[in-house]
Amino acid sequence: MDSGDRDQVLEANRAFYDAFEALDIERMERIWLGDDSIQCFHPGWRLLRGWDAVMASWRRIFENTDEIRFVLTDVRVELRDSVAYVTLYENISSRAGGEETGAIVVATNIFERRAGRWYLIHHHGSPVIEPRVPERAPTVH
Amino acid sequence: MDSGDRDQVLEANRAFYDAFEALDIERMERIWLGDDSIQCFHPGWRLLRGWDAVMASWRRIFENTDEIRFVLTDVRVELRDSVAYVTLYENISSRAGGEETGAIVVATNIFERRAGRWYLIHHHGSPVIEPRVPERAPTVH
Repeated sequence: MDSGDRDQVLEANRAFYDAFEALDIERMERIWLGDDSIQCFHPGWRLLRGWDAVMASWRRIFENTDEIRFVLTDVRVELRDSVAYVTLYENISSRAGGEETGAIVVATNIFERRAGRWYLIHHHGSPVIEPRVPERAPTVH
Repeated sequence: MDSGDRDQVLEANRAFYDAFEALDIERMERIWLGDDSIQCFHPGWRLLRGWDAVMASWRRIFENTDEIRFVLTDVRVELRDSVAYVTLYENISSRAGGEETGAIVVATNIFERRAGRWYLIHHHGSPVIEPRVPERAPTVH
């Protein structure tokens, strides 16, 4: 694996989350390959395909988020020719409508190299659902 | 796009679900590339990496499933050099411990071509969580 490619993929991946944290649709648009092959699967959502559907989803998310921060852990890059995919945990803290929430999401981000630059072509994020434990022990009267 | 490659990827993808329906670990092992680059993100689970962790998860799932059937819809193949990824809905009916359940899962399956054969190297499945509606209208007495 070329360590230069690997670093560039990691930079492109971080730029995706920076654009998300900035809630900036123009920065987000520059991260993605500009054609209808792109796909985006947000946690819990149905699949979205094509430029218009994907960008409409980001506008909707940005409009409904006051603040969001990502700590990325267990980041792994796999490189294959002109394609790379990055897998990781998104450790998320966010605020929307005055309510603070935290979540852990597992993500697969696929990038394609075009003219020496890596573009996001597919994002798949899904919630980690911890095994359920009883909220409280049965009450004995 | 070479339509031969496309057909082979679709066959490899269907073979993955056939092995899952058969609950057959040896068939499942033959679907995957035999090295530690493989990753598997089951719906709601944490990320699994490497041959041993991925195959242990399939054994655990197979042992805890009586029957499972997949209807695949909205299947799309994207081909890039030696890599292909398939996205789709898994419309699942399953039976475990006498209980029948249904679910819709969005999946990303990444394949790699080695010596003319396509091997699964990454599976990411995540639940579609429908927007919540009240279970019933308020009762008026």
